[in-house]
Amino acid sequence: MVIKVKEPLEQEFKYFREGLILFTYLHLANEPELTKALVDSGVTAIGYETMVGETGDLPMLNPMSAIAGRLSVQIGAHFLEHQYGGKGVLVGGVPGVKNGKVVIIGGGVSGRNALQIALGLGAHVTVLDVKPEVLIEIEELYGNEVITLMSNEVNIANAIQDADIVIGAVLIPGRKAPTLVTEEMVKGMEPGSVIVDIAVDQGGIFETEDHTTTHDDPVYLKHGVLHYAVPNMPGAVARTSTIALTNSTLPYAVKIANKGILEASEGDDTILTGFNTYKNKVTNEGVVESLGLDFVDINDLI
Amino acid sequence: MVIKVKEPLEQEFKYFREGLILFTYLHLANEPELTKALVDSGVTAIGYETMVGETGDLPMLNPMSAIAGRLSVQIGAHFLEHQYGGKGVLVGGVPGVKNGKVVIIGGGVSGRNALQIALGLGAHVTVLDVKPEVLIEIEELYGNEVITLMSNEVNIANAIQDADIVIGAVLIPGRKAPTLVTEEMVKGMEPGSVIVDIAVDQGGIFETEDHTTTHDDPVYLKHGVLHYAVPNMPGAVARTSTIALTNSTLPYAVKIANKGILEASEGDDTILTGFNTYKNKVTNEGVVESLGLDFVDINDLI
Amino acid sequence: MVIKVKEPLEQEFKYFREGLILFTYLHLANEPELTKALVDSGVTAIGYETMVGETGDLPMLNPMSAIAGRLSVQIGAHFLEHQYGGKGVLVGGVPGVKNGKVVIIGGGVSGRNALQIALGLGAHVTVLDVKPEVLIEIEELYGNEVITLMSNEVNIANAIQDADIVIGAVLIPGRKAPTLVTEEMVKGMEPGSVIVDIAVDQGGIFETEDHTTTHDDPVYLKHGVLHYAVPNMPGAVARTSTIALTNSTLPYAVKIANKGILEASEGDDTILTGFNTYKNKVTNEGVVESLGLDFVDINDLI
Amino acid sequence: MVIKVKEPLEQEFKYFREGLILFTYLHLANEPELTKALVDSGVTAIGYETMVGETGDLPMLNPMSAIAGRLSVQIGAHFLEHQYGGKGVLVGGVPGVKNGKVVIIGGGVSGRNALQIALGLGAHVTVLDVKPEVLIEIEELYGNEVITLMSNEVNIANAIQDADIVIGAVLIPGRKAPTLVTEEMVKGMEPGSVIVDIAVDQGGIFETEDHTTTHDDPVYLKHGVLHYAVPNMPGAVARTSTIALTNSTLPYAVKIANKGILEASEGDDTILTGFNTYKNKVTNEGVVESLGLDFVDINDLI
Amino acid sequence: MVIKVKEPLEQEFKYFREGLILFTYLHLANEPELTKALVDSGVTAIGYETMVGETGDLPMLNPMSAIAGRLSVQIGAHFLEHQYGGKGVLVGGVPGVKNGKVVIIGGGVSGRNALQIALGLGAHVTVLDVKPEVLIEIEELYGNEVITLMSNEVNIANAIQDADIVIGAVLIPGRKAPTLVTEEMVKGMEPGSVIVDIAVDQGGIFETEDHTTTHDDPVYLKHGVLHYAVPNMPGAVARTSTIALTNSTLPYAVKIANKGILEASEGDDTILTGFNTYKNKVTNEGVVESLGLDFVDINDLI
Amino acid sequence: MVIKVKEPLEQEFKYFREGLILFTYLHLANEPELTKALVDSGVTAIGYETMVGETGDLPMLNPMSAIAGRLSVQIGAHFLEHQYGGKGVLVGGVPGVKNGKVVIIGGGVSGRNALQIALGLGAHVTVLDVKPEVLIEIEELYGNEVITLMSNEVNIANAIQDADIVIGAVLIPGRKAPTLVTEEMVKGMEPGSVIVDIAVDQGGIFETEDHTTTHDDPVYLKHGVLHYAVPNMPGAVARTSTIALTNSTLPYAVKIANKGILEASEGDDTILTGFNTYKNKVTNEGVVESLGLDFVDINDLI
Repeated sequence: MVIKVKEPLEQEFKYFREGLILFTYLHLANEPELTKALVDSGVTAIGYETMVGETGDLPMLNPMSAIAGRLSVQIGAHFLEHQYGGKGVLVGGVPGVKNGKVVIIGGGVSGRNALQIALGLGAHVTVLDVKPEVLIEIEELYGNEVITLMSNEVNIANAIQDADIVIGAVLIPGRKAPTLVTEEMVKGMEPGSVIVDIAVDQGGIFETEDHTTTHDDPVYLKHGVLHYAVPNMPGAVARTSTIALTNSTLPYAVKIANKGILEASEGDDTILTGFNTYKNKVTNEGVVESLGLDFVDINDLI
Repeated sequence: MVIKVKEPLEQEFKYFREGLILFTYLHLANEPELTKALVDSGVTAIGYETMVGETGDLPMLNPMSAIAGRLSVQIGAHFLEHQYGGKGVLVGGVPGVKNGKVVIIGGGVSGRNALQIALGLGAHVTVLDVKPEVLIEIEELYGNEVITLMSNEVNIANAIQDADIVIGAVLIPGRKAPTLVTEEMVKGMEPGSVIVDIAVDQGGIFETEDHTTTHDDPVYLKHGVLHYAVPNMPGAVARTSTIALTNSTLPYAVKIANKGILEASEGDDTILTGFNTYKNKVTNEGVVESLGLDFVDINDLI
Repeated sequence: MVIKVKEPLEQEFKYFREGLILFTYLHLANEPELTKALVDSGVTAIGYETMVGETGDLPMLNPMSAIAGRLSVQIGAHFLEHQYGGKGVLVGGVPGVKNGKVVIIGGGVSGRNALQIALGLGAHVTVLDVKPEVLIEIEELYGNEVITLMSNEVNIANAIQDADIVIGAVLIPGRKAPTLVTEEMVKGMEPGSVIVDIAVDQGGIFETEDHTTTHDDPVYLKHGVLHYAVPNMPGAVARTSTIALTNSTLPYAVKIANKGILEASEGDDTILTGFNTYKNKVTNEGVVESLGLDFVDINDLI
Repeated sequence: MVIKVKEPLEQEFKYFREGLILFTYLHLANEPELTKALVDSGVTAIGYETMVGETGDLPMLNPMSAIAGRLSVQIGAHFLEHQYGGKGVLVGGVPGVKNGKVVIIGGGVSGRNALQIALGLGAHVTVLDVKPEVLIEIEELYGNEVITLMSNEVNIANAIQDADIVIGAVLIPGRKAPTLVTEEMVKGMEPGSVIVDIAVDQGGIFETEDHTTTHDDPVYLKHGVLHYAVPNMPGAVARTSTIALTNSTLPYAVKIANKGILEASEGDDTILTGFNTYKNKVTNEGVVESLGLDFVDINDLI
Repeated sequence: MVIKVKEPLEQEFKYFREGLILFTYLHLANEPELTKALVDSGVTAIGYETMVGETGDLPMLNPMSAIAGRLSVQIGAHFLEHQYGGKGVLVGGVPGVKNGKVVIIGGGVSGRNALQIALGLGAHVTVLDVKPEVLIEIEELYGNEVITLMSNEVNIANAIQDADIVIGAVLIPGRKAPTLVTEEMVKGMEPGSVIVDIAVDQGGIFETEDHTTTHDDPVYLKHGVLHYAVPNMPGAVARTSTIALTNSTLPYAVKIANKGILEASEGDDTILTGFNTYKNKVTNEGVVESLGLDFVDINDLI
Repeated sequence: MVIKVKEPLEQEFKYFREGLILFTYLHLANEPELTKALVDSGVTAIGYETMVGETGDLPMLNPMSAIAGRLSVQIGAHFLEHQYGGKGVLVGGVPGVKNGKVVIIGGGVSGRNALQIALGLGAHVTVLDVKPEVLIEIEELYGNEVITLMSNEVNIANAIQDADIVIGAVLIPGRKAPTLVTEEMVKGMEPGSVIVDIAVDQGGIFETEDHTTTHDDPVYLKHGVLHYAVPNMPGAVARTSTIALTNSTLPYAVKIANKGILEASEGDDTILTGFNTYKNKVTNEGVVESLGLDFVDINDLI
C-alpha cells in the first residue's frame, strides 16, 4: 500500500501495478492521464476527497478546511498592513480606536474556524449563511458579539461595503462555488481592503477572482482591493497540516493494511465511497461523467 | 442620631435640636429653608453627597450610580418596544437579525454598569470617554467586543447617528453636566430611538433635554426620539437601592453612634467632608457660595 | 402568490380565487369562516405554523420563540420596578446586594433564549426541564453558574418560592400547555414577583392564568404576583420579528414562486406539511378534527 | 548569608555569628530563645513576615495566602465526600442536580484565590467583605455569577446556614483574627458541612475553633460540622509553595548578597521593615512589645 | 414494583415472586445465583445498565459517568498533596509558578466532565480521543486552551511523561477497557504523580492496575506513581449521585407504575432494552452468553 | 503651532522661528543638528517621548506600545508560515494537533497586548516578568490558561527552547533594553522559530540582534531562527496608529493652542516634562547629557 498526500505525478506511474492499493488525494476528474494509468495497471485507488463520513461530512477535507479557515484571517490581517498595499488597519484596534471589520461568507467548517480567529484578533465580525440553524449554533457557541445575518444579496452587499477583510468560505464539495460577491460590490469596497477566498480552487465566490495566485506571489489588486487567491492554503503551515491530515487518514490506512482492502471496506461506507478505480474499472461516478468513461458500481465488483 | 435616605421635609424641622446629629442626603445648596433650620437649631448635619473617599471617589453616590447605570439600559430596551413608540427592535437581536446598537457616553461608574448590562443583553456597544486609561481598563475587563472611542464631537456624532439607545453617563459631582450631544445630532438619529440620561438631575448632556420627567410619565418625544429623563432612577428598584445605600452608610453611622461625632471624625477625612452644618454654622463651601452665607471651616470648630 | 404574516381578515376573503397560493400563518383550527372561504374559492393555502423541518423542528415558529424568550426576561425585569407594582429589585443586583432570582420552566428554544438574557442581566438563574440531555447541553453552553434541575412538582415548587421572575417556556406545538405551576405555588411567592408566560396563547402553564392581556394593558395582579400574559409577544419588537420571520419564510416563498407549488413541494416535506387547503379540500388533519370536516391527504391530490 | 524558609531551630543557634545575615521567617514575637540567640551573637536577622511592600502589602506572605486560598476549596470539596464524614455532595453538582454552596468570608488575597477555585469547581459562591470596593472589583473580575455581600453578622448568618463549605479568609497581618462566625451560627449549619479556616494560626474567625489540627489528622467534628484547622496549609503543596516563595525572596536575597545589607537597604523600605535584629539590638517594635525588650530604631543604627 | 439502586442481595431473594417488577442495577452476567433466583421466581427484572437511549447512549449510566469524571480530577488534586505521597503540586499553580498538567484519556461523558473540573482548577489540560469529531466539539465548547490530541500510543506516551495527573476515562459499555497506558509509560512518569482510572471496574486502561481499591484505602503506589482505583467513585458523593440517578430513573419508574410493564414498554425501546428476565426466561443476550443459558427474545414474549 | 508625528527633517528647519511651538516626537539626544536648529531659532519644542503622565506612565508612547504588542504576534504567526522560512506551524493548531507556543518576555503595556492576541489566536502562551504583581494582574485578567513565570535566566531558557514565537517586550523608557536572551539560548531553539523584538530600537533583548531591519525586508535568519527587527512597527498599521496617537496628543495640543504654552504648562507636569528647548536653551537633561550642551531647568525659564 502506498500512502501519499498529493495525487501521483507522471514519473510515478511506472510504479503502478496490479494489487497495489493507492490511498491519497486523486482528483481524477481533472486527470485523464492518471486515470488511464490507474485503470490500465489495475491499481485499487482510494481517493481521500471522495470519502464521505457517516453524517455526510468529508472526513479527509474537514481538517484542511479548518486550517484554511484559521489561516484566512491571519492572512487577511497581514495584508491589511500598509507596506503590502493594505489600509494600514490593525484588526483588533486599540482602546480608543475602532477595530477592523471582518465579514465571513459561509458558516461551515472553514467559516467557523475563520470566525474563531477573527474574534481572537479582536475584530468586529459578521457571518452570513443561508441556514438559520447554522447562525443559531454560531451564536450559541460564540455569543452575540458576532453579527449573524442571512446570506442574501442585500445583506452581503451591505456587510462588505465597509469591511476591512472579506473571507469567502463557501465550499460545496465537488461543485463550483456560487458567485455571491459581484464585481459591483467589490468596486464599492474601500481601497486597501482585503479579500481572501478559501474556495478559490473551486472557482471562488468573488466575481473579481479571475485567476489563482501562489504562495510566492499571493495577492493581486483589483478595484483597489487586495485579492488573496492561493488554492493550497494549508501548505503554508505544512507541519500542522500533515499531522491534521494523518490524524484523519491513519485509522483507515491501518485498517486497510491490517485487513486488506476487501475486508476493510466491508460495511464501511466511508472507504467504499473512496473507491475510484478497482479491477481496471473506474468506480467513481463523478470521474466517469467528467472523463466520458464507463462506470462500474464498486458494489458489483467486490 | 437620625439616619435618613432623603433630605428632611419641612414638617420634620420641628424635631431639629441642638446636639442632634443628622446623617442623610442634604443638598443644602438648593435648600435655603432647610439650611436655615439646621443652622438655627444647632443640628450637626452630615451630608451623604459631600462625603469624599480616600481615592477621591464619592462613597455614598457610587452605589446609586451603579444602579442607575444598570437600569438605564434595561429602561432603554423597554422603550424600544413598539407599543411605547420605540423602533420595535430587540436589543440583542436574534441569530440572522442584527442586534441593537447602544452608545454609552461616559465610562465612569454608571457608564461601566450600563456597559455590563448592554453586553449582557447582547447589544452592539460603543463607549466614549475622554480618558485613554478608562478606555484601556474597559477593554481589559470586557474584551474588545466593546468599541471604545475617544469622546469628542466627531466621534459622538458618528456613533449616535445609527444608535438605537444612547446613554448619557457623564456625572461630574457638584457640576452641571456638559452639553455633549447637540440638538442637531439628535435630529440625525432614527425615529423611535431612545435616549436615557443618568445625569438629568445635573442638567443632562443632551441639548434636547428641556425638562425632567417622572416615574409615572417617564418619556417625552422630541425630533422623533424618545427621551427618558427621570432624575431619581434608583427609586425604581427601591429594595436594591436601600440595601446598597445602607451598605455604604452603615459603617459610618455605627462609628458615629459608638464614638460620638467628634471622635468619629478625628482623622477620618470622609466624615469631615460630610459636615454641612455644625454649631450653628454652615461648614460646606458649596452651600455657602450658593446661598450667600458665612463659611466657617469645620476644622476650626472641632 | 400572496405572502402575509398574519391570518387573512374577513375583508380580504374577496381576493381569494382559484390558483391563488397563500403563504402565511393560518391557524384554521380556530377559523371555520376562513377555512370555508379558502376551500370554496380553491385557494392553495400553505400555513407557516404547520410546517415541520427535517429534524422535527418548526422552522417558522423557532424565530418567534427565540424573540419571545429574550423579551420575557426583559419584560420581567421591567415589571419588577417599583412603580409598576413590582418588588423594586434590580435583576442583576449590585456588588454587595444579592441579585434577583429568575426561574425558567422549560429549556427549549424560548427557555434557552430567556436564559441567555437572564444571565446577561446578571440574575441568579434556575432552569427546569424534563429531559436530562437538555440540561446537559445548557450546562455545556452556559456553564454551571446556571442551576439546572429536573422539572417536577417538588423542584418547581421549591424553585419558585423565592423567585423574583418566573418564566413559563413550555411550548408543545399544537397542544395545550400543561399546568405545571399550581395556584398554591403562586400563593407561596413573594408579593411583587413577576410571572411571564410565553405559552399563554396555548393556555399557559400557570393555574392562575385565567385570561390573556394586551400590549396596552399587559399585566394583572393575582395573589400579589404580577402576571404578564400577552399572547403576541414578538409584536413588541416588530422590526426584529419581521426580519427574523422573513429569514425563515423567504427561501420557501422564492422556491414556490420560481417553481410553482407542485414542483416546489416535490420531495420537500417541509412545504408538504404546510398544505392546509388544496383543490377545495382541507388537507390538514388538525383542522379537520377541530372543524369536523372531510380530510384528504395532500399526497393523494398532487 | 543564610536563606531559610522556616525560623531557625535551636540546634542551629551554634552557627550564629557576628556579621551573619539571616534572611528567613523569624516570628520572634513568640521566640524569646531565638531572639536572645540572635541578639547575643550579633546576627543581622531580616524577617520575611515583617517586610512591607510599597503599597502596604506583604510581599512575602502574599504567595502563601494565594496558595492557602486555592487549597482551601480543594480541601473543602474533599472533606464533603461521604467517607470522610461530609455531606456526600459534589461541589459542582451535575446537570439536573444543584451544585454545592461555598461561602467565603473575606475578599482579600486568600479569599479571591479561594473564589477562583470555587467557581472553577462549579460551586454557587458567595463572598462577604466589609469593603465595597473589594466587592466591586470581585464582580468586575469574576462576573455577577458570584454573590457579593457586605460582611456583617446578619449576612454571614444567612449565608452560611445552607452552605456546604465555609472558608474563613480574614487575615489581618500581626493581629488576631476577629470572631465573625459564632458557635450559634455553626450549630445552625447542616451536618456534614465543612469549615476551612485559612487564618487558623491567627486564632481563626470561627468561635468553634478551639484547637489547630495537623496534615496527618486535619479535621475534627463539632456540632456535626467538619472543621479543618491546619495552620501551615501551603506545606501540602511544598513544591509549588517553595517556588512561589523563592520568586518573592530571591530578588531581595540577590540584592543583599551583591551589595551587602547596608547598601541594599538604603532607600529600600521593604528591606528596612524586615530588620528584626541588628548589632545586638532588637529593631522590631512588635517583638520588643511582646518580649519586653529594649527597642532601637534601625534607622539609628545604619 | 421495587426500585433499588444496587443489585439485589441474597437475603432479598425471598421477596421475589411472580408479577414482581424489579427496576434496578442487575449486572446479571456476573451473578448466576441472582439470575437463577429471578428466573425461577418469575420476576420481571429491568436492568438499568442495559437500557439504551434513542441516540445509542446509556441514560442510566451517563449521570454516574459525569459524577465520576468530575470527582476524578478533584481526587487527583487531593492526592498530589505532599502528605499523601504526591508531588506537592498545586494543580492551578499560582502566578509565577507553573500550573499542574492533567492528561485525560478519553473525551466521552466522563472525560469531558473531568476536563471541565481540570480547567476550573486552573490546570494545563490535554485530552486524547480517537474520534476527530469529539476533539472538535471539545475545542468548540472549551476553547483551544485545551490541548486536544489524537489518541495513539505515541501521543499518549508523550503526553503523560510530564503529567501530574492522568485520568483514564475510556468506558466502552459492556466491554473490558483497552490497555492504553503500558507499564513502561507509567515507569517514565515522575514520582508522586497520580493516576485515576474511572473505568477500573471494567479492567482499567493502565497496565499497572492489578487490583481495585476502596474508599477507605483508595490508593496504592507502583513505580512511584499513586494509583487511585476505586470502582464505585460516585458513592463518595452519595447525595448528589442519588438525586442524579433518580432524575434518570424516575420517569421510567412512573411510567411502569402507571401503565404496567407491558403497556409501558410498548414502543419504548429504552425500556425494552432493559428487560433481563421475564416469564421465567432470560431475555438479555449478554447474560445468556456469559452464563450459558437459553435466550428468548423479549419481543417474542410480550 | 505645528503638530507632527515624526521628528522634523532637515529641509523643514527653515520654517523654524521664534515663537513657534513645535509639538511632536523629537528624539533630540540623537539629533545634534536638529537640536542646534531649534535652539538657534528659539523654537519652543515639546517632545512627545519625554512627556510623563501622573502615574509615571508615558502617555504618548503607550498607544504605540499597545499597537506594537498586538502586531508582534500577528507578525510572528505570519513568519511561522512555511514559505517565509518558518516552521510551517499554525499558531492555534486545530483539534487533534498541538497549538503553537508563544513566549512573551515582559508583561507591561506591549507584553500584555501581545498576550491578548496570542490567546486570541489560540496559542499556548507563557509570560515572564520580574514583578509578581504584574503576573498576578495578568492571571486575574486573562485566567490561568496563561503560564506566568518569574523572569530569570533559568525560566527564560526553559521557556523558549520549544517556543514557536518569542516576543521581546521589555521597554525601559530612555534606557537600553537588557540582554535577556543569550546567543546560546537562541541556538537551542528549533529551526524555523520566530523572534519578534518590540524593543529593537532600544537595542533589543536578544543577543543575536545585531542589526535592525525594515518593513520591506523585515527578517533575517540566525542560528536557524527568524529574527524580525523592524524599529517602527506601528507604521505597518498607519491608520490605526495615527488615530491612536491623536487621541493622546490632541487634548494637549488643544490646551496649548487655546491657552498658550505658558498658561497651558502651569501646573501641568505632563506638558512640563515635554519641554526640550525653550528660549534658545535645551531644557531636557537627557539631551544635554547626550550632546554635551548646557542645561537650563525649564522651571527657571517660565
